[in-house]
Amino acid sequence: MSDNNTILISPQKMHEHFASILVNLNFTKEKANACAEIFTANSIDGIYTHGVNRFPKFVEYVKAGYVLPHAMPSLHHKFGAIEQWDGNLGPGILNAVHATESAMQLARQHGIGCVTLANTNHWMRGGTYGWHAAKAGFAFIGITNTIGVMPAWGAIDSRLGNNPYVMALPYKDEAIVLDMAMSQYSFGAMELAVFKNEKLAVEGGYNNEGELTNDPAEILASRRALPIGYWKGAGLSLLLDLLATILSGGLAGHEITKTGIEKNISQVFIAIDISKLGNHSIITKTVEAIIEDYHQSVTMDASKKITYPGERVLKNRKNNLANGIPVLKKVWDKIMEL
Amino acid sequence: MSDNNTILISPQKMHEHFASILVNLNFTKEKANACAEIFTANSIDGIYTHGVNRFPKFVEYVKAGYVLPHAMPSLHHKFGAIEQWDGNLGPGILNAVHATESAMQLARQHGIGCVTLANTNHWMRGGTYGWHAAKAGFAFIGITNTIGVMPAWGAIDSRLGNNPYVMALPYKDEAIVLDMAMSQYSFGAMELAVFKNEKLAVEGGYNNEGELTNDPAEILASRRALPIGYWKGAGLSLLLDLLATILSGGLAGHEITKTGIEKNISQVFIAIDISKLGNHSIITKTVEAIIEDYHQSVTMDASKKITYPGERVLKNRKNNLANGIPVLKKVWDKIMEL
Repeated sequence: MSDNNTILISPQKMHEHFASILVNLNFTKEKANACAEIFTANSIDGIYTHGVNRFPKFVEYVKAGYVLPHAMPSLHHKFGAIEQWDGNLGPGILNAVHATESAMQLARQHGIGCVTLANTNHWMRGGTYGWHAAKAGFAFIGITNTIGVMPAWGAIDSRLGNNPYVMALPYKDEAIVLDMAMSQYSFGAMELAVFKNEKLAVEGGYNNEGELTNDPAEILASRRALPIGYWKGAGLSLLLDLLATILSGGLAGHEITKTGIEKNISQVFIAIDISKLGNHSIITKTVEAIIEDYHQSVTMDASKKITYPGERVLKNRKNNLANGIPVLKKVWDKIMEL
Repeated sequence: MSDNNTILISPQKMHEHFASILVNLNFTKEKANACAEIFTANSIDGIYTHGVNRFPKFVEYVKAGYVLPHAMPSLHHKFGAIEQWDGNLGPGILNAVHATESAMQLARQHGIGCVTLANTNHWMRGGTYGWHAAKAGFAFIGITNTIGVMPAWGAIDSRLGNNPYVMALPYKDEAIVLDMAMSQYSFGAMELAVFKNEKLAVEGGYNNEGELTNDPAEILASRRALPIGYWKGAGLSLLLDLLATILSGGLAGHEITKTGIEKNISQVFIAIDISKLGNHSIITKTVEAIIEDYHQSVTMDASKKITYPGERVLKNRKNNLANGIPVLKKVWDKIMEL
């Protein structure tokens, strides 16, 4: 976990640093703590790309006035089990936590609840909200649009966002959480690979000559990430943007792309209260049986185990809580200068 | 469209043949017509794999007693905007139409509605229900599980279904409908490629030696389809099965796989009534602007246009309504013997 380029930072120290930087940026103590907690938790869980590695960019956005520390979401429209909120450009993670909890509250009343956010900011790690809802007993679906980073199938120019999609449900005392961008690799993952001087395991996008490549630097240069499953991921991306935009009443991906800055994004949060289902008493066993079968998969490499989405997070969490969070020295140096 | 191996069948003739075959199999006239209409509509739309090409297998399932012509869905549990139904092994397409309409009705009341089916049968083309809901003014999400056909990432044995996923929304007087299996190619598409003696455009699965291949016959032999985006599609498949199973209270993919027959499957239908949204009056323009931008994509091959999911369906529909539905001779011969 640790090498010459990496240092170990305790969760408490990371949290304190993040919070104090945000207080200096005019966040209230409460909001600074809430943001610091999620950035730190994402790092503890091993999602460094949307934890510690992303923190400097978040600060940059606050300084630029793209993220407004004091803005609170406001309810724009409500009908039955649907609420449409305006994020008013507040911190994306605080808006998203608020929306997740509102969707859970609607689900307690109606079985299912759908909350949307227009004009919000990057939610960082979509899995945050999946874990949050699932650990409280809800199935969860989350959608966000993003700035354009992928071409439509057969196209050269990148008009589609990677539009991360989240699905989650409770599992034992934890959760099963799928949190995936529609590009084969998230830009965060490709930036990390460049940082570590690594190639991608499979082709992740196009170079400037329009050829598929596994060199993350070339893909970052072209901004042409490969959609998962070629035309299929491109189609998924388009539909996720369409749903996020029409359900929230916020900006579409193409409008965000035209501004050149990833803000004013649109999101959807759907929660289902599984305690309200007729089969609620056997759901735990049902999920365990599915995962048990899944784990019985015969692996190509006998030394490797098949893991479900979210499973490695638990391992990272245990390691990082016990030993500290591995952080690239150059990242931590940058944070110390903020 | 037509060649030596293909004949053109008028929609009316196809519908009449299908309906009369089903009446002979003890379907009521009404149900025979409803099924025949959807099998024919899928063929008109160019989704032959789940239209005319699939009809013989549907008949086989009826004859085997897997699909019960007279079974009707029954309401098992209801809470707020959620209804859980038992499909009672009735015809999958009739159950799915019923569930879609129930979800739409719940959405009219609550803004969003979620209807699940346990113990149903194959819905044929998931897009059917997306078009149905979207043309009536609803955003739609549909999930089904299937028998196991794909390995988990890193695994040899195929424990995951291709679990088709549908997202749809209204567009002009028609709809934008994404209907996609989690395998790079559906088994229907691969069977058709074998039928036509064609290779796949990209690698679609593994051969019996565990190597990636674009030979559909080899993949049909190994039953190891490639998930879209490698580990990502495998994760999506698992989560879709988990959601379909726990929300419906029906069988999980691994249980269906163990029986060896694709019946007693589990499905989810979510509808959102967009006329109940605060921004409903501008949604048409919003969608048009997104599609306009998407269509402006610069193509690699200047002679080709970028199409949105569902766009080619309109072209097929126009052609096939005007000229008749192209059907492989050997398929029609088989149908004439049913």
